[in-house]
Amino acid sequence: MQLPYRMSDTPTHHQIALMPSGRRGPVPAGMTLLDAARQLGVELESICGGRQTCGKCQIVIEEGHFPKHAITSSADHVSPIDGREAAYRAEHPLGARRLACACEALGDLLISVPEESQAHKQIIAKAATDRVIEVLPAVRQIYVESVEATLDDHRGDWERLQVAVAEQWHLTGLTIDPLVLPTLQPALRAGKFAVTLTLWQETEVLRVQPGYAEGAYGLAVDVGSTTVVAHLCDLRTGAVRATEAMMNPQVRYGEDLMSRVSYAMMDKQGAARLHRSIITALNDLARKAAVAAGVSTDDILDVVLAGNTVMHHILLGIDPVELGGSPFALAIDGPVDLKARDLGLKLGAAARVHVLPCIAGHVGADNVAVQLAEAPHRQDELMLIIDVGTNAEIVLGDRAQVLCASSPTGPAFEGAQITHGQRAAPGAIERVRIDPITLEPRFRLIGMDDWLQPGSVIAEGGLRATGICGSGIIEAVVEMFLAGIIDPDGRFDESAPGRSPRVRFNGRVGEYVLADAGHTASGAPMVVTQNDVRAIQLAKGALYAGVKLLMAERGVAQVDRIVLAGAFGSYIDPRHAMILGMIPDCDLSRVVAVGNAAGDGVRIALLNRERRAEAAQIARSAIHVQTAVSAEFQNEFVDAMALPHATDPFPHLNGQLPARTAHASARRSARRRAPAQ
Amino acid sequence: MQLPYRMSDTPTHHQIALMPSGRRGPVPAGMTLLDAARQLGVELESICGGRQTCGKCQIVIEEGHFPKHAITSSADHVSPIDGREAAYRAEHPLGARRLACACEALGDLLISVPEESQAHKQIIAKAATDRVIEVLPAVRQIYVESVEATLDDHRGDWERLQVAVAEQWHLTGLTIDPLVLPTLQPALRAGKFAVTLTLWQETEVLRVQPGYAEGAYGLAVDVGSTTVVAHLCDLRTGAVRATEAMMNPQVRYGEDLMSRVSYAMMDKQGAARLHRSIITALNDLARKAAVAAGVSTDDILDVVLAGNTVMHHILLGIDPVELGGSPFALAIDGPVDLKARDLGLKLGAAARVHVLPCIAGHVGADNVAVQLAEAPHRQDELMLIIDVGTNAEIVLGDRAQVLCASSPTGPAFEGAQITHGQRAAPGAIERVRIDPITLEPRFRLIGMDDWLQPGSVIAEGGLRATGICGSGIIEAVVEMFLAGIIDPDGRFDESAPGRSPRVRFNGRVGEYVLADAGHTASGAPMVVTQNDVRAIQLAKGALYAGVKLLMAERGVAQVDRIVLAGAFGSYIDPRHAMILGMIPDCDLSRVVAVGNAAGDGVRIALLNRERRAEAAQIARSAIHVQTAVSAEFQNEFVDAMALPHATDPFPHLNGQLPARTAHASARRSARRRAPAQ
Repeated sequence: MQLPYRMSDTPTHHQIALMPSGRRGPVPAGMTLLDAARQLGVELESICGGRQTCGKCQIVIEEGHFPKHAITSSADHVSPIDGREAAYRAEHPLGARRLACACEALGDLLISVPEESQAHKQIIAKAATDRVIEVLPAVRQIYVESVEATLDDHRGDWERLQVAVAEQWHLTGLTIDPLVLPTLQPALRAGKFAVTLTLWQETEVLRVQPGYAEGAYGLAVDVGSTTVVAHLCDLRTGAVRATEAMMNPQVRYGEDLMSRVSYAMMDKQGAARLHRSIITALNDLARKAAVAAGVSTDDILDVVLAGNTVMHHILLGIDPVELGGSPFALAIDGPVDLKARDLGLKLGAAARVHVLPCIAGHVGADNVAVQLAEAPHRQDELMLIIDVGTNAEIVLGDRAQVLCASSPTGPAFEGAQITHGQRAAPGAIERVRIDPITLEPRFRLIGMDDWLQPGSVIAEGGLRATGICGSGIIEAVVEMFLAGIIDPDGRFDESAPGRSPRVRFNGRVGEYVLADAGHTASGAPMVVTQNDVRAIQLAKGALYAGVKLLMAERGVAQVDRIVLAGAFGSYIDPRHAMILGMIPDCDLSRVVAVGNAAGDGVRIALLNRERRAEAAQIARSAIHVQTAVSAEFQNEFVDAMALPHATDPFPHLNGQLPARTAHASARRSARRRAPAQ
Repeated sequence: MQLPYRMSDTPTHHQIALMPSGRRGPVPAGMTLLDAARQLGVELESICGGRQTCGKCQIVIEEGHFPKHAITSSADHVSPIDGREAAYRAEHPLGARRLACACEALGDLLISVPEESQAHKQIIAKAATDRVIEVLPAVRQIYVESVEATLDDHRGDWERLQVAVAEQWHLTGLTIDPLVLPTLQPALRAGKFAVTLTLWQETEVLRVQPGYAEGAYGLAVDVGSTTVVAHLCDLRTGAVRATEAMMNPQVRYGEDLMSRVSYAMMDKQGAARLHRSIITALNDLARKAAVAAGVSTDDILDVVLAGNTVMHHILLGIDPVELGGSPFALAIDGPVDLKARDLGLKLGAAARVHVLPCIAGHVGADNVAVQLAEAPHRQDELMLIIDVGTNAEIVLGDRAQVLCASSPTGPAFEGAQITHGQRAAPGAIERVRIDPITLEPRFRLIGMDDWLQPGSVIAEGGLRATGICGSGIIEAVVEMFLAGIIDPDGRFDESAPGRSPRVRFNGRVGEYVLADAGHTASGAPMVVTQNDVRAIQLAKGALYAGVKLLMAERGVAQVDRIVLAGAFGSYIDPRHAMILGMIPDCDLSRVVAVGNAAGDGVRIALLNRERRAEAAQIARSAIHVQTAVSAEFQNEFVDAMALPHATDPFPHLNGQLPARTAHASARRSARRRAPAQ
C-alpha cells in the first residue's frame, strides 16, 4: 500500500559548506544561516544577535554545483528577503549579499563569508615580528529587544531586560554598574524598549544606549618611565584608531625610576603627586586619542595598563617605597581589575581598567606584556628576551619553563651617567663608526638620515648633536675597542694618542673626541671618557652576568633565539651588542629587535580577554631568579666586565670581523704590560 | 603478657559540656576550647581567629563534679597560662576567666560561656513587638598574621596575605578594594605583618589596619519622604551606638511624593537636585551619628538603605519620572549593592551600601523592610499589615503566600488636603474625643501630655494647636460619627446645630469647631469641614477596598492579626480605625501598632547578611495585586466610603460601644430622609 505522502519527502537537514574555512555539514532545515554557521564552527560577527539590525553577518550565497562539496547551491535555497532585512537593505544597500540571520536554510548551500563578517577577527600587530591577535575583547556590545512595562508586570525594567538578554544572548547573572542604572529607563524608552548594551566580561553592563548603537573603544597604554604611549582601538574590529604618546610627566620629579622612588620617600605627598601626574597624563592621552579618532571619551570603556613595577604601583596609587630597597616587596603581583573612575580617569562612567600583573620586585607588568607578545611559553625553541631599561629584564624560556631575572645594569644604557649622555631623542648620536686606521669617527643623529663625519658642514639651523644616547654610546665603545683605542679591560691605550689627536689623556685618564665643536649644539666638542667606558662595562657586565645566570639555571650553554625588546633593542645593532658582550653568542640571523613588544602585549590584552588570563598565568608560572643575592651572579659579573667577554664566546662573529679583531688583537699584548689604571 | 603500657591509658578524647547551652560531647584531647566549642555547635566570638590577641573568647572553667553531665571538671584539665595569653592578661586582667583559644583540653571540662563571648549575639530591637536579631553582619573584622617579604619570595604582599587568610580563616578568593590596596603595605609593616582586615560578605577587603584593631560600624537608614532616621550600629555587638533623625531636605522641592516627582519632571536638573539633597542629608546624619558615638566616619563601612519606590530611585540617582504615571515601572526591583563612594557618601573609603529591594511601582523597599521585621512569610497565622503613608501599602500573608498591594489613599491620613491639616509634629492635634451628648470636644497635642478641653487655660508661651495631624483627623471624624454629628454617609446631620453651636452650616455645608480660638496658635478657631470628612472617607475607602481586594484574592473573610506599621500606626487608636472602617473586623487584642517596623527591618538587614537574602526572597516571591485596574477594587471602594462600612462588619466592637452606636443609630433614619448633599 502506498501512503498518500512519505515523510521523507521533506528533508529534515540540508548540507551547508562555508568558504573560505571549508567547514561543512548538515544543519536542520529552516535554521538561520547565522546559527548554521555557528553550529559548523564558523562564528559570524553579530551585535544584534540575529535581529537584522546590525548588518554585521553579511554573506554571499554562491550559485552552482560544487562537486568538491557535493553541493548544488542556489539563492533560492534560502528564505526570501522580507520584513526587517528589507528595511535594513533600504538604508544600507547590500547588493548580492544577504544577512545570514535573515536566511533560513531551505536547501543545500555553499556560502562565502567575507572577511569583515568573520567574528574573532585576526589582526596583525605592526611589530617587527608579525603578531596575530584574535579579537575577543573583554568589552563588547549586544543589541537586545526587551518588552514594555505593563501594569500587570511589576518587575523592574532591569529585571525585564535581563530576561530578554538571557533569551536572546544566553547570558545570565548580569549586573549593571550603579552609575549606569540611572540611564536605563530613558534609554529603553528612547529605543522603544530595544537597547544596545556594552558588556564587560559578559557579566557587567557598562553602558546602555537606545536602540541599535555601535562603537566601543579601548585604550592600551604602555606606561614607560620616560614615555607613555596610548593606542585607541576599536574593540569590535581590533583596529588602532589613534596613537598618542607623551613624555611621562613624572620625569619632572626624577629622571630615572630610583630618583622617583626617592622623591616618594623624601616627600610625604610625593607618591600622591606622582600618581596624580600620571593620571592627568592618561586623561590627556585619552582625550587627544579620542579627538584624533573622532570619538567621545565616553565611548572609551576599557583600558589596559602596563609598566614596570614602580610605574605599576604609582598608577594604582601605591607608594613605591618598598620597591626602593631590599627585599623589593610588591604590594600585589596579580592582575588588578578596577573602575576607571576609581583611578580618576575621565572616560565612560563605568569604564573598566585592567592592570597587567607583575612577576617580582624588579620584573613588572611591562615584562609580562613582552612575554605575552613574544610568547616564549608557547615555543619549542629556547628564547632569550632582553628588555633594557634602567634595569635589564631578562627572560629565558620555552614551552617547558620560563625563567626571568632583573639585572642591575643601571641607567648607562639609557644614556644616563655618561658624560654627554642623553635620552634617545632628536639630536642624540645613535650610531657610531670609527675608522680602525685613522681613528676618525662618523655618526648619525636621531632625526637625521645622513651620517656626519669630521668636516661635514651643517647648514645654519640644521640639526646638531645634543648628546649621546644608549645605542650611540654602546657603538662608540665597541668601535673604540675594535679600533684599539681601548683594550679588552676597557682602559685607554696609552699609545693611541700617537695614532690620532682625537685620543687624549688628562693625566692618566683617557678620552676620545667623538664629535667636533662644529657638529654639536653646545658648540663644544663631545667626548667619550674613561668613566663612560667603565659605566658601559658595568652595565653590560651586569646584563651578561644575568643572562649567564639564567642559562646556568636552565643548564644550557646556548640559546636558539635572542629577542631584543624595547626602543633600545630597536636602535642597537645586534652585532655591536654581541661584540660588546651584552648578549651571548648566537647566529646573528637569530637575533631580532622586536621594537615595543610591551606595547604590543598591552594591545593584545586589550583586544583579547583570554590573553589576559594567559598573562596572569605567565606571571604566576614564571620562575624568578634572584640576581642580587647570587654569588654566581657576582662572579659572572666580574668576568663579564671585559671586552669582548674573556672566554671569547662569539664563534658566529669570527668570520665577519677579521680585520678589526686582528687589528685589536695585535695591540692586546702591549696594553697588557701597561700598569693598571 | 602485660605490655609495658597500654595505649588506652592516654585518652584520645575528653568530655566537654558547655553552659548555658547545655551542649556536650567528646572532643579530641589537646584541641583548643575555641575549636572544641565550635565542634559542639557553640560559636564563640573571635576576631583574631585563635591567636590570643582579641580577648573575645573568654570562658570560665567550672570546678567540681557535675553529675547531670557525668563530668568532673577542673582548671587543671586545660593547658596552663603562658606565652601570648600571659601577655594579654598583663594588659587586660581576666580574673578567673581564660581565653578559650589558649586552653587545650587535657581532661573533662564543664565550661561557662559568658554572654559577651557568644558569637551571633542576639539583640532585641526596641519595637513594640520585641524583635530578636541575630548578629551576623555582612561586614566583620578578622585578625591575620602574615609573613615578612624576603628576597627569595617574589610574591606580592597581598598574595602572601591571602595565603595567611586561607590558612587562618579558611577564606579563599578574597579581593581587595582598589582604594584600599595602597594602605596594605604600610599597615603590614606598622603591624609587623599582622593586620586586621575588615571584610564584606567574606569576599572583599574593605579596610586594612595594622596589628589588632577593633571597631566596624554600620548605618541603617530609613529614608522616609518626610523624615530620615539613621541608626549607627556596632557591627560586632549589634548595639545601636547613636540614632540621628532629620527632616528629608527634599521637602523643600515638594511636600508629598508626587509633587517631588512632578518637580523632577518639570525641571531637567530636578532629579539630580533631589538626589544630591538626600545624599547631603545622609552625610550629615552619618557625621552627627559618628560624633555622637565617638567614632570616625572612616569606621563606618556598611550602610543599608530603604525607602518607598520614589525615595529608592532618587537615592540611586534614578529619575523617578516613570513612577509618576502608569504603568509605574521600576527601574530595578532587586537589591542593589554598591560602593558608598559611588553615591557620594563620605564614609570609609571602601564602605559598602546595600539598598533593599522593591516589589512594585508603589510597593517599595520600605515595605520590604516592614515585611522583613514582621515576617508574615514565617507565620502560620494570617497577618494583615497596613503601612499608611501617601499610599497605604497593604500586606496579607502567612507562610503559604504573601500578597501585597498599594492603595491610593492620597495624603489625607498624613494631614494633607485637610482644612487645618498638618504633618505629625509638635502642636498638632493627635487625639480627639467628643462628648456624644454635649458635643463638646477634648483633644491632645503632640508635645503635651494633658488633654485640652473648652475653657482650659493655656499659659503665656504654652503650646497651642497648630493643626490637625492624620491620627487627629481620623479620631475627629470617628468621634463626630459616634456623636451623631455626621451620618454613615459622612454628611453633616442638619439637626446637629440644634444640639450644639459647635456644629454650623455655611449654606448646606457643615463644619464642626474642634478647637476654640484661645487654644490655637493662629488665634482663630479650628474646624473640621464637610470636605475634610469627605477626604478621610475617600482615603479610608481606598484603604479598606485594598484590604478587601487582598482578602478576596486570598479567599478569606477574616484575618488572624492586624499590624499597623509606621508612625501613623503608632499614633492611631486601633478602635477608632476599626469604627472608621479603615481595617476589617478583628479582635482588638489582635490589632497591634508596631511603630517604625521599616526602620527595624533596615537594622535587621544591616546586622544580618542572611536576612538580606531573605529580603530579596520576600521581594521576589510577594504577589503584587494591582488595585488601579481592578473593577472589584472600584466596587469595594464605593462601598467602603460609608461610616461604618455598610455591611457593619465589626462584631468585635459591638459589646464595647453600645451607648454611642445606639445613639448614632437612632439618628440614622431621620438623616436618610434629608436630600443628598
